[in-house]
Amino acid sequence: MFTQSKRPYLWGIIAAASLILVPAAQASGGATEGEGPGMGTIFLWIAILLILAKTVSLIERFGQPAVLGELVLGVVLGNLALLGFNWFEPVKTNDIMLFLAELGVVILLFQVGLESNIAEMRKVGLSSFLVAVVGVILPFALGTWVVGPWLLPGLSFNAYLFLGAALTATSVGITARVFRDLGALNSDEAKIVLGAAVIDDVLGLIILAVVSAIVSIGSVSGLQVAWILAKAVLFLGGAIVLGQLLAPWLGELFSKINAGIGMKFTLAFSTALILAFLAEEIGLAPIVGAFTAGLILDPVHFRSFYRPEITHHLRKTLKNMPDEVRQSLESTLEAHEHQHVAELIEPVAYAFVPLFFVLTGMAVDITTLFNLPILLVAVGITAVAIIGKLAAGWVAGGKVNKMLVGWGMVPRGEVGLIFATIGRSLGVMTPEAFSVVVVVVIFTTLLPPPILTAMLKKAAAKAAVEQTAPAPAPTSVSE
Amino acid sequence: MFTQSKRPYLWGIIAAASLILVPAAQASGGATEGEGPGMGTIFLWIAILLILAKTVSLIERFGQPAVLGELVLGVVLGNLALLGFNWFEPVKTNDIMLFLAELGVVILLFQVGLESNIAEMRKVGLSSFLVAVVGVILPFALGTWVVGPWLLPGLSFNAYLFLGAALTATSVGITARVFRDLGALNSDEAKIVLGAAVIDDVLGLIILAVVSAIVSIGSVSGLQVAWILAKAVLFLGGAIVLGQLLAPWLGELFSKINAGIGMKFTLAFSTALILAFLAEEIGLAPIVGAFTAGLILDPVHFRSFYRPEITHHLRKTLKNMPDEVRQSLESTLEAHEHQHVAELIEPVAYAFVPLFFVLTGMAVDITTLFNLPILLVAVGITAVAIIGKLAAGWVAGGKVNKMLVGWGMVPRGEVGLIFATIGRSLGVMTPEAFSVVVVVVIFTTLLPPPILTAMLKKAAAKAAVEQTAPAPAPTSVSE
Repeated sequence: MFTQSKRPYLWGIIAAASLILVPAAQASGGATEGEGPGMGTIFLWIAILLILAKTVSLIERFGQPAVLGELVLGVVLGNLALLGFNWFEPVKTNDIMLFLAELGVVILLFQVGLESNIAEMRKVGLSSFLVAVVGVILPFALGTWVVGPWLLPGLSFNAYLFLGAALTATSVGITARVFRDLGALNSDEAKIVLGAAVIDDVLGLIILAVVSAIVSIGSVSGLQVAWILAKAVLFLGGAIVLGQLLAPWLGELFSKINAGIGMKFTLAFSTALILAFLAEEIGLAPIVGAFTAGLILDPVHFRSFYRPEITHHLRKTLKNMPDEVRQSLESTLEAHEHQHVAELIEPVAYAFVPLFFVLTGMAVDITTLFNLPILLVAVGITAVAIIGKLAAGWVAGGKVNKMLVGWGMVPRGEVGLIFATIGRSLGVMTPEAFSVVVVVVIFTTLLPPPILTAMLKKAAAKAAVEQTAPAPAPTSVSE
Repeated sequence: MFTQSKRPYLWGIIAAASLILVPAAQASGGATEGEGPGMGTIFLWIAILLILAKTVSLIERFGQPAVLGELVLGVVLGNLALLGFNWFEPVKTNDIMLFLAELGVVILLFQVGLESNIAEMRKVGLSSFLVAVVGVILPFALGTWVVGPWLLPGLSFNAYLFLGAALTATSVGITARVFRDLGALNSDEAKIVLGAAVIDDVLGLIILAVVSAIVSIGSVSGLQVAWILAKAVLFLGGAIVLGQLLAPWLGELFSKINAGIGMKFTLAFSTALILAFLAEEIGLAPIVGAFTAGLILDPVHFRSFYRPEITHHLRKTLKNMPDEVRQSLESTLEAHEHQHVAELIEPVAYAFVPLFFVLTGMAVDITTLFNLPILLVAVGITAVAIIGKLAAGWVAGGKVNKMLVGWGMVPRGEVGLIFATIGRSLGVMTPEAFSVVVVVVIFTTLLPPPILTAMLKKAAAKAAVEQTAPAPAPTSVSE
């Protein structure tokens, strides 16, 4: 093999790194062994993960959400090394793969935001707020003062503080994906969970700041807490208000200069990325920014890009037609007319969203489950983690399915791990306590998808009986 | 700022690197300074580059190809540091940005392959072959035995050998983009250039191998050359033959299990990535693999995914309608029906293709142009580099515009740099000779877009006169 194989990107690298690359190329004949995988290898990883993910997503046929298949696939691939098959190991820690996975979850939450609606979210705002507050306070209190001291006796108070904090924040990616996979993103329950998850993120940010400060310097000022809160509120509020004011004007402007579909895509995609960046800058999760971007870019402001005069003309023509003809053509027209920004983003989502969930699954180290004492303690703490969120679901107002809201808040994903990692690095959490949190994260990540699915189906069936008409099974929107 | 800002990807990183990350997070309050830019920063870079690229691509209004705007934008951004503005500097060498740029050019060549057609390519096969062979041999001979010794006297024969080799291989990305931007991808000239560029790549591979071997070990066996040639021919031939045989069968299979648009996208995208990987593995450029993938996945095999029964039904309904109605609806239906794989790939292209051209521009160091002796020598060698390819265009058979073919072969891009870099690392090329090659690459990269544009427009105007009917100006396909 020759260095030529790396040509298209060498153009960029050469200016800075030619002398590093070339000796390696000479030594190995051009392959990239010893200095990380080449770009070709990463292309191959992406292709294999996407094909496998799409294949396991066929479990949608059996009414399961695709995300469950992707998570389990990830767990299997990530632990194949236990069987001596190491090929997938470097994927877990490769910077480029981790970036693409992050890009994937940013795109997913952007999509979810696009499919949500500020006015609708506002209606459930109080419910979301209550669910978020209870869902943060209860697990925190239970973890810090009850199950921590009880199941993991002998640790410092600070350790319990971190354990409690690790049980608070919801990782909304998984829940959003389940609701989306099953076409239930427009339900009140979904809106409450999404809103609560955003508020959760702000609360989690504050708790992390306070707990870290207490552990590090023994105290924290009310001013510091207020400043964090102010930044977060300003970001969310500012983005939504400014966005609402600017988006129609921008949409109008760009539809006037008739810059086409490419411009439409670029503006939408860039807005998501910029808000993800800003969210990260002020300490929120990038996905909160991406979700906000989706809320702002209500498709309506972009629809004018699509030359409404054409579909308007067709619609007028249709009016004078026999009913049968009109109906059969109406749906075609509908599809044509509604090709808005969400549809433009969809293919990019196909390329990257599954990578996030597969990589999330791959980060699960199942050997953690082989240690019985840790496993038992973790089961107990998982129960508390779940009960805390189910109780939070209970305070959701209105005629919603409270259990559904509660289970929607259960996934902790990476959030819990970050708390535990910081606790460990500050020297307050023992390796055992850390392992316990890892197992809790595994359970709270893998349990909700099948449970939410079962509940959503039961709800659909019940609704069908109440209407005494057979309701269609929830269909997937991810195809 | 708090570590929480990095939460969604830490989930993946933590397992392997928690102890590296966390102290840094503590020290800096969670930001990622000192260990490369955070993901949020990369999101911001992407957003800014895409918005700027889309804005400069408005030069399409003035009949210029978008790629020219993107390249010049890149040159400007990449040299802002000369004015003391360093913000864009880290973009040039960031691994993730370079990967995304590479992904962009892979997607572009995949698109170009999708829009090309094996049968059509075969028709111009002989022309492509002749253009490629002359376009490799002539610049190589002129560089090694004529302008090298003449303009850069006093160097070793091996240095001239590398200079000649650096002048051979065409970097087809830029030409393909210009033809595509101006809607001329289906012209005979475009087909000849694309075919020749693929053959060029194989020839360049052989020259690099032979020249490197001569310099390193003093000789090279015919067997080694034959083996390289065999691998390349096997890859291209094998992929096309196997692909032609398998694609209809796979398309049929997957349309039967009715796995939807997501599966269609995944299969197409993954095929491009896998062939890009395989091409790199055997030492060809990844873009050659991606182009081959596009050729294989003739959209026809994928159209069956699109539920033809629906459009078929609509078409039948349309038949019985008054002419006026039928016509106005026919076009809507057409658009609906032809949403094939190329359209699914388009949004992903919007997100990444401009990054490649902007980063290509950014790699241009304009200070190289400030050294007058080097500049003069480079101008002379550029002239030879261009003349060699124009002569190659001359041997293209048929009634094609030979100058257009010739200019289409001119861009050297990163390819020339790789040869020069290897020459330098082997100790045979002086820093001056290397700088000369850098300048030649700049000229051959930046000159062809405006010249190709002017020639394509002149040709279109001429065709219009010949038909004594006003032909539409070439329209952009990139919107």
